[in-house]
Amino acid sequence: AASIRRALIYEGYSVEVVHDGAQALACARDHQPDLVILDVMMPEVDGVDICTSSDTHHEIILASLAAGKHLITEKPVGYNLEQCREMRWYARQYAHLKMAVGYSLRYHSIHIEARRLIREGAIGRPTYGHVEHSHGGHGMSGVFDRPAGPRSALSDRSSGSYIAGSELTSTTHPFDLCRYLFGDVKDVFAFKQPYGVFVTMRFESGATVQCTSGSVSRVQPNVLTVQGTDGVLQTRNEYVPPVGTKGKAEEEVDLVLVMKPRGFYINGQGYHEIKVDKLVVGHGDEARCTNFLDAVFHDAELISPLDDAIKTTELLHAIRDSHDHEIRVPIHYQEKTG
Amino acid sequence: AASIRRALIYEGYSVEVVHDGAQALACARDHQPDLVILDVMMPEVDGVDICTSSDTHHEIILASLAAGKHLITEKPVGYNLEQCREMRWYARQYAHLKMAVGYSLRYHSIHIEARRLIREGAIGRPTYGHVEHSHGGHGMSGVFDRPAGPRSALSDRSSGSYIAGSELTSTTHPFDLCRYLFGDVKDVFAFKQPYGVFVTMRFESGATVQCTSGSVSRVQPNVLTVQGTDGVLQTRNEYVPPVGTKGKAEEEVDLVLVMKPRGFYINGQGYHEIKVDKLVVGHGDEARCTNFLDAVFHDAELISPLDDAIKTTELLHAIRDSHDHEIRVPIHYQEKTG
Repeated sequence: AASIRRALIYEGYSVEVVHDGAQALACARDHQPDLVILDVMMPEVDGVDICTSSDTHHEIILASLAAGKHLITEKPVGYNLEQCREMRWYARQYAHLKMAVGYSLRYHSIHIEARRLIREGAIGRPTYGHVEHSHGGHGMSGVFDRPAGPRSALSDRSSGSYIAGSELTSTTHPFDLCRYLFGDVKDVFAFKQPYGVFVTMRFESGATVQCTSGSVSRVQPNVLTVQGTDGVLQTRNEYVPPVGTKGKAEEEVDLVLVMKPRGFYINGQGYHEIKVDKLVVGHGDEARCTNFLDAVFHDAELISPLDDAIKTTELLHAIRDSHDHEIRVPIHYQEKTG
Repeated sequence: AASIRRALIYEGYSVEVVHDGAQALACARDHQPDLVILDVMMPEVDGVDICTSSDTHHEIILASLAAGKHLITEKPVGYNLEQCREMRWYARQYAHLKMAVGYSLRYHSIHIEARRLIREGAIGRPTYGHVEHSHGGHGMSGVFDRPAGPRSALSDRSSGSYIAGSELTSTTHPFDLCRYLFGDVKDVFAFKQPYGVFVTMRFESGATVQCTSGSVSRVQPNVLTVQGTDGVLQTRNEYVPPVGTKGKAEEEVDLVLVMKPRGFYINGQGYHEIKVDKLVVGHGDEARCTNFLDAVFHDAELISPLDDAIKTTELLHAIRDSHDHEIRVPIHYQEKTG
């Protein structure tokens, strides 16, 4: 710390040095610094929240675990299968630590309730499903002229080492949601286009799921369908006009907001709305922090644990291989640790 | 006719013979016969409605055209690519005749309106879509134990020569609907399971569509999404409680009817319901007859013309090849006529 301080002062910066997490928080509040340089070995800190660029997650995860810290990290975890193998080995070595990953769709309250219902057998055994989750804001002009390859690396510094879905569509999320709801995947087939990735997955359970991770021009037509041996479950966006437009003629309302996912299931007992205490959508930041702290301090079950997210990365690699070569690809789980 | 009459009387049947279509209709009304033996060469008849078992369609179509009759036939048309080639050749030879195919989903008023909107550019150029159309009533018990191959040939007498979707799911319909909405298909990938066929199609236009033709345990979660460069269009089933149950508590209503498909599109001008004059669902028998007669007598455009349905069969053959071999398959259009 002393040598970094000297170097920075020499460069003309004003520097405050503290030696544990509690002091760091107090100091940050007092001084509102432009830059914080942190050491994951810092005393008085129980956990680390990793929100650096995607390709740095791996080394920080390993360092955090080695330093004995609980961790919550942004996705993705693992840029190649060797990183998956290494991370899985670390995760098992430090099994007493809590490790959470920010796969947003898992934290949406309607998905949590949907999963609970499926696991409880509300619609029997799942046979097939469809997950359509599309991202706005990427622009659609000239989509047919673009090459289908990576267009922008987004948060990725090292171009060429991107993983499927982390470029144009920027959404690895729906593929992870499929795993959250249906379990482990056996094999996949994928077509990739400039406007989306289209995957069919066969699960270990016997279920088959079609998944669209697309780019949209205006609003997200997100739909989740799960067909079971004794019913069907569906969640989907409802399109709600902006507040203050009620009663106005359709042509006077020129903006459409997508606000409320709605869910229901139908089985031998009839039609049932899926009810949630609190509607969580978007990035689900609060829900993920709450779940992480509950796990650290009260041993709650993690909604998106690292060892599960590693399997999502292995799925993503199979998806990339499939759309690159236009063949069916089995998932390679890197279980070997030697 | 005389020799058939003699043979039947010899067998103990009572037989009436007439010699043109007008007499035949009058005779059928008077006698309510148990069996009618018809000749497609019959005078005083302008058209033939083919509703025999699937594998006989081909020969009757060719005979009807050769006899100079307009025709309306149930799907499918063509059990192999050679039949497609032959039928296309006949269709071109007798281009003055109207030839319609009973692909039910094309006659649903909401699909007709959806197609019109797409063609008019209401959501820009289609980039991707999803068609989920599932059939009830096939039973779901033991679906994971069944082989994924043909389970029942349904209307098919010649087992082994079935085409994709004409067995368990019995639905070639959603694949044809994809063609109706998105045009000609370039290549496909398909997984087939005992509970459905799951296909991803890439279209000549550049669009990509995921299509589920599934079996359901209870109600059909039919969804159509079309994402365009300037908006999105969606139709889907609404689940409506039976008449007379309004106001009752959820747990008192033990039967759920799927009644009303609802459609809307969202573009730069806002949110718009898709409105239809008359809701046509199910087999659409009346709509298809009306369209056929309008075509014969008023030269109206056919909603489901034979030459287009032949292309659907060629798509179905590619789907079968794809799921049999688990590889991507291009569509072979049998354009050669020599």
